[in-house]
Order: sequence, then structure tokens, then C-alpha cells
Amino acid sequence: MKISPTMDITEPTLLLDEEICRANIKQMAKKTRRHGLHFKPHMKTHQSAKIGHWLKDEGAEAITVSSVTMAEYFSRHGWYDITIAFPCNIRQAGRINTLAGNVELTLLVNSVTTAKKLAEKLSNNVKVYIELDTGSERTGLKVNQLSQIKALVKELKDAQHLEWIGFYSHPGHSYSSRSEKEIRQVHQSVISQIQKLRNKLTADFGKFEVCVGDTPCCSKATNFEGIDAISPGNFVFYDLMQVQIGSCNISDIAVAVECPIVERYPERNELAVYGGAVHFSKESFKANKINHFGLVASREADQWMTIANDCYLKALSQEHGLITCSDQVFDRYQVGDLITVLPVHSCLTANLMGSYQLENGRIINQL
Amino acid sequence: MKISPTMDITEPTLLLDEEICRANIKQMAKKTRRHGLHFKPHMKTHQSAKIGHWLKDEGAEAITVSSVTMAEYFSRHGWYDITIAFPCNIRQAGRINTLAGNVELTLLVNSVTTAKKLAEKLSNNVKVYIELDTGSERTGLKVNQLSQIKALVKELKDAQHLEWIGFYSHPGHSYSSRSEKEIRQVHQSVISQIQKLRNKLTADFGKFEVCVGDTPCCSKATNFEGIDAISPGNFVFYDLMQVQIGSCNISDIAVAVECPIVERYPERNELAVYGGAVHFSKESFKANKINHFGLVASREADQWMTIANDCYLKALSQEHGLITCSDQVFDRYQVGDLITVLPVHSCLTANLMGSYQLENGRIINQL
Repeated sequence: MKISPTMDITEPTLLLDEEICRANIKQMAKKTRRHGLHFKPHMKTHQSAKIGHWLKDEGAEAITVSSVTMAEYFSRHGWYDITIAFPCNIRQAGRINTLAGNVELTLLVNSVTTAKKLAEKLSNNVKVYIELDTGSERTGLKVNQLSQIKALVKELKDAQHLEWIGFYSHPGHSYSSRSEKEIRQVHQSVISQIQKLRNKLTADFGKFEVCVGDTPCCSKATNFEGIDAISPGNFVFYDLMQVQIGSCNISDIAVAVECPIVERYPERNELAVYGGAVHFSKESFKANKINHFGLVASREADQWMTIANDCYLKALSQEHGLITCSDQVFDRYQVGDLITVLPVHSCLTANLMGSYQLENGRIINQL
Repeated sequence: MKISPTMDITEPTLLLDEEICRANIKQMAKKTRRHGLHFKPHMKTHQSAKIGHWLKDEGAEAITVSSVTMAEYFSRHGWYDITIAFPCNIRQAGRINTLAGNVELTLLVNSVTTAKKLAEKLSNNVKVYIELDTGSERTGLKVNQLSQIKALVKELKDAQHLEWIGFYSHPGHSYSSRSEKEIRQVHQSVISQIQKLRNKLTADFGKFEVCVGDTPCCSKATNFEGIDAISPGNFVFYDLMQVQIGSCNISDIAVAVECPIVERYPERNELAVYGGAVHFSKESFKANKINHFGLVASREADQWMTIANDCYLKALSQEHGLITCSDQVFDRYQVGDLITVLPVHSCLTANLMGSYQLENGRIINQL
């Protein structure tokens, strides 16, 4: 991808490097084949039918999403095997039921209450994962809540229209890792928990499927014992947070935001840019004791490279961004130029930007 | 406005209390009349033609926006006097020129460089404010940069198609205030700076207009000496941040997010809700040493009231929210219920939500 500062960009624009993105997808797909895993990529990061095609090109046949709306969108775009990896929201039972009439739908059901209320409202069949809280303390049951898990499996097995197929986990605590070694430690603990669960449940309930879905573990783990499927999402783009975690290198980042420079402040080495909280999100990132919202990058050959640790997006208001930089870097930029910023969290930035610009200016839309 | 938990809400929904919103608008409009100020409300908070009508109902004839896109939208919805309160982005000169052919457009031009580049590209006339940095250190020139200001005024007076009309300031440092007294101190400093500027410039350049636009000062100041126009935005909705600053009371907040409860965690008194970073934004708020993304509220008579300081949105991921609460509050909520959350920063939440739901379910759209 060739990015030129003379490109016809007038507003904050999310550039997508198709080659890097496809390479990220190819690598993850290859890993799933090597380990005999079912590939169910999470679409919440990109929310785009076009990028869905790139996943299909690498063999993905099933997908994961985080909302009913996203499931409906990808169903309209030809996907048939869809998991909504969010605790089932029974207020949406009507739309879930319609969707289940059109696609093979898998839901997360984490309590007997939800199972009962859902079964009452469905006339079409759905598959069900129970969500495991393997350490993130967000949603799901813990492996040691065995009596609750057993009661829920029984409830699901008895319920009309619900077919229990196994367990899902997003080990979000892998995001606290700061090296490959730490990521693998989190992953090993997830594997041990799953093994424990299989030992306790298989005799009573037979074989079941386990799907795990976090980008750090899926990127760096080499042992997938006891895991049948993976559903990472962020890996298609990666971002600065994933670099910090240890999931990838800067050169794997497939998206960057181009921002018009609107003012220069030589007395404080700051550039005011058009690019604010409504473009980047307010997700920030602490590195070398500095809290920031993105790093300034330059385009070198076929990838983006950060310029220096002291060139970063220091503040965001609704539409304004303030970039601080060294003397040397400051002098390179003039009012009216574009400046490239690598986002802290590509999922939230992509969600706000709503579309991607490829080489030659072609635009890819989201749902 | 009557909010009932049986309302037909299935997804995170931004409720708008029209009565409170109209009362906030009426109060600000009354203040402008009392002080002989030109009312130029900032539309970036709500981004809605309908709420624009409520402003018009209270006498607003001119508006402020933060992007060319927003200016185009409100131009299509009948507004003629529009200020884009963002440092002029010369990459959008084409659209700016078209817009200037249709409406009376005022821009912010903060440097001779921008003035020259803009003048080259326009064939229609625009009015120009120079932005003053009265303490926020975001954008604009400081009052003590007098030689730069004079050079810029001269440049603007000589430039074709540019008519210099005065100065604009967003005293964003008022957001660090924590009481009415502190807000008034910030405001007094702004007034002193403007007075100083008038003393230095009037002899050479004649009379000019000054517009000031931050919700805290516009809400709480009682002295507007030397100020001709105000352009607050957030006041139409207010939010928890404005309560903390001292701009308003909880009962003035006009928007709240209804979230479906998807799971309950009795062992940690936490409720998992459908309502995440893509609904609330990642703007957080520190009060009583706790960092949070919103407070749980209940509907009492004609307003929302917070339940307790220990009932708050403690964590957000893309679509998930986690609410922590006391035993007593926890027991009130079941899976499938709705829970009401007052947002930290209504501008960013409104931008993400994209629409508002009024009483009786009527939907108001944004641009």
C-alpha cells in the first residue's frame, strides 16, 4: 500500500492496509488448520462484509459477533453459522427467533433464569454455549461453580429449542499481559480450567465443544489441548494495545488514522489536528509513564512505523486532537498536511469511523 | 416524562426528557436576553435538527457547530447563521466555499498561514473569528501574543473574501472547576483577558465582537462585560461531569441510557448489562476516589435521581457494561429488567447512540 501525503483526504480517515490485514488473517487461519481448530473469527472489530470475504477466502465458514444487529447484518451477507458471543439478551428474543429461522445460531446462556425465559419465547432452534469466566471477571460462570454449571447444563438439555453444545470463554485478563510469556501463562491456566471441567462433566454429559476467543492467546499460544474452536477478533487489524500486550509487532498493525493538521504551536511543540474523541475513542494507553491516545507514525515501505515514543496524541476533545512531538518531528509538518496516527484500540476506532479507505481511495463500509 | 421498566426497549437506548431539555434551553436563552448577549448555541452536543427547533422556539437565530459536515446538515435544516468553532481545516476549503455560498458562515482562523491558504481557495465570502486561548491550552492565540494577533488581524482585513469580525474562545479549563465559585474565577479571568485585548486593539482596529462558549461559565457566570455572544453546547442535556464541575444539578440532566440487564453476579453484587464503550464512550469520571463510566439512576417524579454513590458503571468493554451496587439495590434488579444509567459525558454518549427516544417511544434522529 502506498500512502502519499498528497492523497485526497480532507477529514479524519481510517486507512486499511489490505495486504497486512490479509496476512494477519492468513496467519491465524493457518494456525487453526495446524492445530485442528474450528475458525470462528469475531467480526466486532471490523463490522464489515468486505473484510468478511477476506476471512472466507482463508477458509472461515463460521463467525462470531457481539450483537443481534451484527448477526443480522452478516446473515444478510451470506454467513450461515453465527455465534453471538454476548450473554443472551432476552429482550431481543423476537429478533433472535427470526434470525434462528434463517441461520444456524449459537447463543451464550449463563443462567437457568435466562435459559427458562429464552426457551419460553423461541419457536426456532438455537445452539447454546455456557460462558466460562476463566479469569476476566466480566461475565460467565467460574469452573469451580460446578453445581451451577451442572444445573444449567441439565436445564439446557431439557429445554425446548435449546441445544447445549459446550462452553465459550473470552479470557480478557490476557490483556494485562506484557510479554509472550505472560500471555502463555494466562492461556495455560485457561487450558487447565477446561481440562478440569472436562474431567468433571464428561461422564455425566458426554463430549462437548470449547471455544476460546481472545487475540493475545490465539496469537501467541502454541498448545490448544482441549480447545475445539477459536474466535479472536482484533487480530485482523491489531493495534498499539496488542503490541504492548505482546500479541504482535508494530508492523502487523493494519489500520491508521490520517488527520489533517489545522494549527501549529511552536512554543509548545504541539500540532492541533482534526481527529478527536469521536474518531479515536477515549481509550488511552500508558507507556513509559505517558498516557496517550495514539502514536504518530510514518509510512516506511509496506508498513507503518512509529516515529518516536515522544510523538503522540496527548489530548482529545470531541473533534480536536493535540499531538506533542520533538523539535525535529515538529518541523516536518505544516498546516494543511496530513499526519498519521496509530490507534490505541482499533476496535473502538473502527466502530467510530464507520468505514475504511484502501489504497487508491476505495472505501469499504461497515454495517 | 413517564419512564416505565416495561417500556418496549430491547437495546441500549438514549432517553431524552424533552421537558428538562426545553427548560435548560429556556433558562440559557433567558440569560442571553437578560445580558443582551447574542445566543449562538453549539449543536455538537445533540447534532439533531429537532432539538435545533427547540432552540429556535426560544429565540436562537444563529448556531455554532464543530465540523463542516454538521454545518451542512444544519444548513439543510433551515439555519442561516452558522459558526464552525473549529480551527479552519483548509483541506475542506471546497466544501467550505460551497457552504459559504448558501449561508452566512463564520470560521475560526488562527494563523496567517491558514488565512493566506484559505483566501486563495474561496470565491464566496466568510466571516472570521480569531480564536483566543484563554487558558485551555488547546487551540488559539494567547492574549499576550499581541504582535501575532495584530499581524493576523491585518492579514484578515487585507484578504479577499475574509471579513474579520472578532474573537472566539472556548475556556475549556473551566472543566477543572469543582464549584460555582471556581467557575466564576475562570470566567473572571476570561473577562479580564478580553478587556485587555479590547484596550490594546480598539484604537487600531475599531470595535469587534467576542463570543465565548463553555457550558460551565455560560451556566454560572453573572457578569458578561465585554462579551457579545455565547455558544454553550452541553447545557441542553448536561451530565454527571457538569454536576461535578458545578454547572448544574442532577435534576437538570436531560438524558439517560436504559440498558437491558443480561446477567446477575450475586457473589460480587454486579450486574452485566447490554451497554458498552460503543454506547457510553470510554470517558470516565473520578468521584470519591472511584473511577466510573456512569451512575445508576431511578426515575422520581419528573427527573432522574442517582440511587447511591456506590451504584455505578465500573467497567466497559465494546458491548458489555458491568454495574456494581449495594446488596439492597442489587436485589431490586432481575435478568431482563432495564437499568438506567446517567452518562459521564452526554456529548460523547449522544454521538455514539445516534438518536434519542422521547416519551411514548418517539425517536429523534441525529445527522
